[in-house]
Amino acid sequence: MLASKLYAPTLRETPADADVISQQYMLRAGMIRKMAGGIYSYLPLAWKSIRKIEQIVHEEMGSIDAQEIMMPIIQPAEIWQESGRWKVYGAEMIRLKDRHEREYCLGPTHEEMITTLVKGEVNSYRQLPVTFYQIQNKYRDERRPRYGLMRSREFIMKDAYSFDIDEEGLDVSYWNMYHAYERVFSRCGLYFKPVEADSGAIGGSNSHEFMALAESGEADVIHCNSCDYAANIEIGKPGIIKAVEEEASELQEVPTPDAKTIEAVAEQLHLPLAKTIKAVVLSTDGVVVLAIVRGDHEVNEIAVQHAVDSTIEPEMATEEELQNAGLTAGFISPVGLKQTETFKIVVDESVMETYNVCGGANKKDAHYININPKRDFNVDDIIVAPIRLITADDACPNCGGQLSIAKGIEVGQVFKLGTKYSESLNATFLNQGGRPNPFVMGCYGIGVSRTLAAAIEQFHDENGIIWPRAIAPFEVVVVPINAKDEALMDVSTRVYEALKAIGVDALLDDRKERAGVKFKDADLIGYPLRITVSKNTLESGAVEMKIRKNGEAIEVPIDEVTTVVADTLNTL
Amino acid sequence: MLASKLYAPTLRETPADADVISQQYMLRAGMIRKMAGGIYSYLPLAWKSIRKIEQIVHEEMGSIDAQEIMMPIIQPAEIWQESGRWKVYGAEMIRLKDRHEREYCLGPTHEEMITTLVKGEVNSYRQLPVTFYQIQNKYRDERRPRYGLMRSREFIMKDAYSFDIDEEGLDVSYWNMYHAYERVFSRCGLYFKPVEADSGAIGGSNSHEFMALAESGEADVIHCNSCDYAANIEIGKPGIIKAVEEEASELQEVPTPDAKTIEAVAEQLHLPLAKTIKAVVLSTDGVVVLAIVRGDHEVNEIAVQHAVDSTIEPEMATEEELQNAGLTAGFISPVGLKQTETFKIVVDESVMETYNVCGGANKKDAHYININPKRDFNVDDIIVAPIRLITADDACPNCGGQLSIAKGIEVGQVFKLGTKYSESLNATFLNQGGRPNPFVMGCYGIGVSRTLAAAIEQFHDENGIIWPRAIAPFEVVVVPINAKDEALMDVSTRVYEALKAIGVDALLDDRKERAGVKFKDADLIGYPLRITVSKNTLESGAVEMKIRKNGEAIEVPIDEVTTVVADTLNTL
Repeated sequence: MLASKLYAPTLRETPADADVISQQYMLRAGMIRKMAGGIYSYLPLAWKSIRKIEQIVHEEMGSIDAQEIMMPIIQPAEIWQESGRWKVYGAEMIRLKDRHEREYCLGPTHEEMITTLVKGEVNSYRQLPVTFYQIQNKYRDERRPRYGLMRSREFIMKDAYSFDIDEEGLDVSYWNMYHAYERVFSRCGLYFKPVEADSGAIGGSNSHEFMALAESGEADVIHCNSCDYAANIEIGKPGIIKAVEEEASELQEVPTPDAKTIEAVAEQLHLPLAKTIKAVVLSTDGVVVLAIVRGDHEVNEIAVQHAVDSTIEPEMATEEELQNAGLTAGFISPVGLKQTETFKIVVDESVMETYNVCGGANKKDAHYININPKRDFNVDDIIVAPIRLITADDACPNCGGQLSIAKGIEVGQVFKLGTKYSESLNATFLNQGGRPNPFVMGCYGIGVSRTLAAAIEQFHDENGIIWPRAIAPFEVVVVPINAKDEALMDVSTRVYEALKAIGVDALLDDRKERAGVKFKDADLIGYPLRITVSKNTLESGAVEMKIRKNGEAIEVPIDEVTTVVADTLNTL
Repeated sequence: MLASKLYAPTLRETPADADVISQQYMLRAGMIRKMAGGIYSYLPLAWKSIRKIEQIVHEEMGSIDAQEIMMPIIQPAEIWQESGRWKVYGAEMIRLKDRHEREYCLGPTHEEMITTLVKGEVNSYRQLPVTFYQIQNKYRDERRPRYGLMRSREFIMKDAYSFDIDEEGLDVSYWNMYHAYERVFSRCGLYFKPVEADSGAIGGSNSHEFMALAESGEADVIHCNSCDYAANIEIGKPGIIKAVEEEASELQEVPTPDAKTIEAVAEQLHLPLAKTIKAVVLSTDGVVVLAIVRGDHEVNEIAVQHAVDSTIEPEMATEEELQNAGLTAGFISPVGLKQTETFKIVVDESVMETYNVCGGANKKDAHYININPKRDFNVDDIIVAPIRLITADDACPNCGGQLSIAKGIEVGQVFKLGTKYSESLNATFLNQGGRPNPFVMGCYGIGVSRTLAAAIEQFHDENGIIWPRAIAPFEVVVVPINAKDEALMDVSTRVYEALKAIGVDALLDDRKERAGVKFKDADLIGYPLRITVSKNTLESGAVEMKIRKNGEAIEVPIDEVTTVVADTLNTL
């Protein structure tokens, strides 16, 4: 393609409201434009990269016999009501009514839809297993869309769904997909880690997330330095820390004016954080949950969700919910409180192993000292569970080794659903014995647009993007340093044509811009290779080939360009 | 691909609520499934055909340097309010609110969005011309979605937008697109006609629709049997018919009890229809329009729209609107009526050339006879315009020759927008003189999913679909008549592999079904060629090749199959 015919409006300045590198560079490189909060247009360069990711996905889905279909983006409310998720999704689901006042949503995912689609048509075990996939816009009305394509409200997903006879079949489908995902992300050039993930309240036995490791990632990944354990921090199970045993002193109320955080209390009372307990009040599915961890620990909300057996991810409780539960924010502990239908108390295991700690007195400006949980809590009336977040100081849950924590961008997830949707939507097949059985399902997702952003988060420098070859909008840019010079344009065109002839995806920068502008654009957009055609090297019958990744530049004789470029691309 | 791994749930019975052939066959062939009114899932076979159409579109868009982008499906209300179309679209536009109560629509088209996208970024005439396109779901909340993919609420469109310096530039872009569309539809194998179309109230000088001719089409196309004139009937300009001049008789009221249609009146009074005038009451943009044509003519609503200079396509007026305008349904004529701000009277030119005709007396159960329009209408206070529909009895507006009328499915449209959107959205570039000018725009659409349906409407027989080769889900199906017979499967597999090796898109029907079932499915799904492998022909070292289109079957020696298939496909 000719750069003079390519719409790539590059910007010299970093746009003000771009939070992360991928967003900044995609805006600056003329790849995306924001049309509304969390809603973007893809300009030609970005769309070309998206198409390359899609092609890799198609090939790898084909390799495991997954069949491409296309389901509607608009989904009728009825199937979501049937599965029970119409309510669960809350404000994240974008809803609408048609002219006849019928309710729909814009699909955030398609479990209900695919189950409805095969229901009554896949009738026999002989038709199983079967796996479908589609690549499509998905919708989530994020409270605070941010980070460009990493957390947008309209985004491109590849979603897939497998249908099997039984758990063993699902296991095969699951691992086929898992390995296909490994190949997809490897081929895209990402540095990623599959990690164990929360399988939710569904009771599925397996889920893995594919994490592209990057500073800007919103997820925390723990992994062991000794064994191959790797997991989303949410599911890392911490050990129980037993404090040194002490004689229990008498419970005593002390004034703690204006000390609303446990850190402030510890400072006022000159206590180490480990001698305090802190309260986090959450809300899930209409239930207010008081979560208690040691002052030096953090609450793992997913663990709390499991502890109270909820299907809905907890959120911070509102002031109103606190009031209704009779809680005094900043001064809460379980001492003297009782659970009800709509109020639960979940205490971390390690809290139960503490002595003489400090916690809220459940009234304003007061704390207790010398709380002894086993003595002072209604121990038969609380839930004790491992609800603190694991840390790098904990031992590996698998081998006891040293853990590390890294930031990750979730680019994919595989999930064993089991019979959750086939049961709620009553979708069955006849097994070998002629009896109706619910399908055993898996669901699988790849964030296509997020993968694009993740690649940039991983591969860039101060001058711009450094594309992995496989998903670069163009593999090579050929730059005549002066497009008005016929001799230079002539050589450039010949090199460009020769590269295209061997299947290299090349761009000829025939724009009548200064060389400096073209070089800056080439670095910003991040083509893996740049061929510069100038009088300097032409004198010796050569052009310059520069590798974006490491800045290495070598002179290449014109008649060797195709070979050298092909060889070099294979190393990128 | 192996049929045993292909999800194509064929049905023997025609589904009850399928109105047209394409819908019936796509349902029966396991290609689509209805998920809600006017909302469909595409199963693997249909999606494969859609992908082939898309590929043809991509190639032809590339050939005219149109660049692929992707704009959001969700569009903020603001840009539609700015262009003035937020109101115009009415109930057809699907609207929604996000969690912050901001308003959006699901894009029925993207003129506002693309104009907003380039605004401020394409700054100079040097960057022009430029054309963008995308392939994407579009949304129209049809009052009565029907005909399967032909008139659905969620459908796949290729939309494109061109930006030029001036009308001359637009003319080049327009005709480039026009010819690309001709190539797209030719390559898809459609039998189509580009016809002149309404360019709306925009004042654009050109618009063409690409009509796939088919009985089930919703559009009427007129075309000349002598010259190459072809147009949507809506814009065919009829000549003025002058009745034989008569002495004007006296206006007289006669009772016409219960005669609410002009046909009933003519019968009661023993008058030919040509001696009557009839009234159609329309509503557009808050204005009630009384349209008058001769009793033997029909009203062309688009012509009425132009006559009153409205931007909104007229609809039939409601009872309430009639009452407010003081009109008595069934007994209306312009005699004694006056136009107001919100009430217009439009009389067809040929009506003005009649004498002593019969029309409504503007009161219940009464008509006038001997109306003489030039005498009895407030001629200075009505709009006279050519508002009757042209018929096959009219002369060709171009050469005076004989006209024909055919039904067409609109599969594409090209449209000169001019500066409508660039002006309303204030999108300008600097011209050679350094002065800001509004972009001169064109917009262009292809109904991708509708093209699929149109192909079936054109090519089918009583047994099923007969795909044009280029968009068939598979080009060839290889059918061993008994998949349990190893020898047959062996030959079938070899033939299938050989076909794949030369690039033929082949399916091997390895299902352990009876031959009859496989043949029925092959005919229903409509693969262009079927290779049957049976003991009969194998004895003489041959297989049978059957052409779906004409039923012709020939024996082909096994080692010639690839050549014969390739040659035959080239003729389909």
